[in-house]
Amino acid sequence: MPPAALDALRARLAELADLSALARLAGWDQRTMMPPGGAPARAHVFATLERLAHHRATSDEIGGWLDELDGDGDGLSDLDRDLVRLARRDFERTQRVPADLAADLAQAAAEGQAAWQTARAASDFAAFVPALRRNVELARAYAGCFEGVEHPYDALLADYDFGLTAARVKEIFDPLAAKLSDLAAEAAARPAAPPLSVPLDAQRATVDALLARLGVTADSWRVDISPHPFTSWVGAQDTRITTRYEKDSKLEPVLAAIHEYGHGLYERQIPAELDRTNLGRGTSMSAHESQSKLWENHVGRHPAFATVIAAELAAGGFTIEPDALHAGATAVMPSLIRVSADPLTYPLHIVLRFEIEVALIEGSLEVSDLPVAWNDAMRRLLGVEVPDDAHGVLQDVHWSGGAFGYFPSYALGCLIAAQLWEALEADAGAQDDALRAGETGAIRMWLAEHVHVHGRRLDTEPLVEAATGRGIDPEPFLRHVTAYVRD
Amino acid sequence: MPPAALDALRARLAELADLSALARLAGWDQRTMMPPGGAPARAHVFATLERLAHHRATSDEIGGWLDELDGDGDGLSDLDRDLVRLARRDFERTQRVPADLAADLAQAAAEGQAAWQTARAASDFAAFVPALRRNVELARAYAGCFEGVEHPYDALLADYDFGLTAARVKEIFDPLAAKLSDLAAEAAARPAAPPLSVPLDAQRATVDALLARLGVTADSWRVDISPHPFTSWVGAQDTRITTRYEKDSKLEPVLAAIHEYGHGLYERQIPAELDRTNLGRGTSMSAHESQSKLWENHVGRHPAFATVIAAELAAGGFTIEPDALHAGATAVMPSLIRVSADPLTYPLHIVLRFEIEVALIEGSLEVSDLPVAWNDAMRRLLGVEVPDDAHGVLQDVHWSGGAFGYFPSYALGCLIAAQLWEALEADAGAQDDALRAGETGAIRMWLAEHVHVHGRRLDTEPLVEAATGRGIDPEPFLRHVTAYVRD
Repeated sequence: MPPAALDALRARLAELADLSALARLAGWDQRTMMPPGGAPARAHVFATLERLAHHRATSDEIGGWLDELDGDGDGLSDLDRDLVRLARRDFERTQRVPADLAADLAQAAAEGQAAWQTARAASDFAAFVPALRRNVELARAYAGCFEGVEHPYDALLADYDFGLTAARVKEIFDPLAAKLSDLAAEAAARPAAPPLSVPLDAQRATVDALLARLGVTADSWRVDISPHPFTSWVGAQDTRITTRYEKDSKLEPVLAAIHEYGHGLYERQIPAELDRTNLGRGTSMSAHESQSKLWENHVGRHPAFATVIAAELAAGGFTIEPDALHAGATAVMPSLIRVSADPLTYPLHIVLRFEIEVALIEGSLEVSDLPVAWNDAMRRLLGVEVPDDAHGVLQDVHWSGGAFGYFPSYALGCLIAAQLWEALEADAGAQDDALRAGETGAIRMWLAEHVHVHGRRLDTEPLVEAATGRGIDPEPFLRHVTAYVRD
Repeated sequence: MPPAALDALRARLAELADLSALARLAGWDQRTMMPPGGAPARAHVFATLERLAHHRATSDEIGGWLDELDGDGDGLSDLDRDLVRLARRDFERTQRVPADLAADLAQAAAEGQAAWQTARAASDFAAFVPALRRNVELARAYAGCFEGVEHPYDALLADYDFGLTAARVKEIFDPLAAKLSDLAAEAAARPAAPPLSVPLDAQRATVDALLARLGVTADSWRVDISPHPFTSWVGAQDTRITTRYEKDSKLEPVLAAIHEYGHGLYERQIPAELDRTNLGRGTSMSAHESQSKLWENHVGRHPAFATVIAAELAAGGFTIEPDALHAGATAVMPSLIRVSADPLTYPLHIVLRFEIEVALIEGSLEVSDLPVAWNDAMRRLLGVEVPDDAHGVLQDVHWSGGAFGYFPSYALGCLIAAQLWEALEADAGAQDDALRAGETGAIRMWLAEHVHVHGRRLDTEPLVEAATGRGIDPEPFLRHVTAYVRD
């Protein structure tokens, strides 16, 4: 007989999981289906959902159940012990933040995003300063709610990647940045690859055909179009990804679809016994990004898989040699905008943001000095000159919404992906032949057994250790992208 | 200064309105977008939403606020007095139903629907009997929670059409049925009109063009396809209707779209000051159906509007004379299936169901005797023989889900629509010329000012009185459909 407190706790966690599924559905709908006039009502719905979820996640009963279960821990299964451990962690973190501060954070985020949109359109950083300053202040106040963190940034990071610290990220990023900067300079000195230009119809046909090969079927997936590709795991067996098409674009729609597929697959392959618990989802932002990047970089950009993509493009009416396709998909050139950066220089954009946001949060950098710091770092890390703030410090939405600590996951995901890929090939053998034949079943299975199986039971770095035998290591990624420049 | 209890009550009502908007969104998604694999997870989400909404709608605080406001009623505006009055009514009705009974009802409904699907597919009523018996028992238990109702059916009716009673519905239906049966027999004796057959492309083009004429624009409406046409008011300025297309069908897709438009317009034209309160929605099922039927029968089937539809069909590549179109859209022929019945015989299908469900609820009819009662009534009211239960007693989903008391609104809606239409033309003048020109602005405005303006502040029959000067009266409907047979 499981203790009654466990039943009660599980019921509440199921409720919170369902509310979270509703929020994902409402978010998916907002970005794909909702008529624009629905925006104000949708904002109310989100606020209500968030308030209600907060109310239900912080109610005193939960503390009572947890206390009871702490005294009773020996009777629990391993899984239930993890469930209780994470429930206590989440409960205590949420309880530390006063309701007034939470409301201020939400309001400042909404106002910040509006201010940012105006400022970016006018490339006018000064217009964004007051809102950004307010977001920084509130983020510092938020960090101040948590005791026992070495650096205030650690408290922010914990919301996206629990267990990582500013010091650990710096330890990973510093040597990575040095080596990537050198490789970027090397690439910049070489002649640029001729740009790919894939017609719209061939893009669409190839996305559909590749996703079908990966197991995307209409009975439990949707594929839609949105301005920014994203994934929503609305429920078990209800995974929704999006991509976007642009006239004569490069291979982005295809790579974006494969990237989003990786996010979707992670959630789908988490064991059913974790469904509707606090353990039944991807464990962190960087673990999630490792899954999308593994599919994007190590499958989508694999030289052997280029044969498959080229065949699908040909079926869609566009002929290109696999080698030329691979060269186009792995071309390196330092540039201004993060979201369109190549895989090699991409982490440098992240290192820059990480350095700046750490300095903002610890108070060693003033908001008004941001553009200068940004432009200096772009010169130092990527060797490029920033022409205006719209193409520099104003390009990302994250800080306008108060999301400090989110950026590192984008680069950590790239590193972890490469590390997992090497472990996968060491374990399951080189995938070249399989990928040339368009077979990815062994990859899906390895990921299920070594990554997805854990759900949220392991945090980022313990998960990487369990799957690869060591903590986060940038070397596999460096090996991977060095081939882009020197092959 | 409004009393603090009013602020608290309004905040809770806004929250409940948002939860209800989420349920509508999840329902819309389920019927239009969700991959089939998402069904089990969606069932959990609905159950959680319902439990949470029930929890928030019945919490003791609400009783406290209402008591405070009752003592303080003089200080309230008229609107707030209505808000408090309806809040008390809803609160007390919800509180009367024990949580266990509510859970049993939900479970029996889910099981009943599954049993019905199997039984209907096999045309095997006996297989449906146990589940239906359970639903009837629970509906009687539910009715028993409410004191002071004359007939147990009244308590069920109140969930769909507050204020109506079995006695009042019978008083309206009995003479209606007698006259309609005679007209149906008269129609059955005439030669059948040649059936319309509109090609798919012309159906689609005509639906799009007509909805555009009615003001359906992409900024605040969506039009999708679903197996059963329906409307979802997801939020202010976010109205979603569906229709369905069938190869070489009659005019149904067009009339279904106009019908759903009527539901959507009702919710959209409710004053913004009622938004996110308990007053900001259509007041009852029959009031809602009156709006859809007004647009379907009195605009869509108007002889003058046939000119407009014929022009749009012609633009879509299908040529037909307006007279022939109108004859096809108003052809009368007694038949077996409610959802495909013509406008004249349709209410007879409802009278039959009303008589049977009243008898079931009062216990004067055994569930096992239903097929015989059904087939007898079909012979008596419509003069048709039922060949098997799939085309008879098993054709509707409602009872399988425990929805007793819902059916009358379908016929009452037809009656109220005709009554409103006569009042509208008496007030704003005959609409023939406007409809021949495709102009419906005056109709929309009259409905906004005489019906939609009230939101939920008036119940069904008081609303009809306010708009037409008298209670529900079948004569306008009889005048309307008599023209179908005798013109």
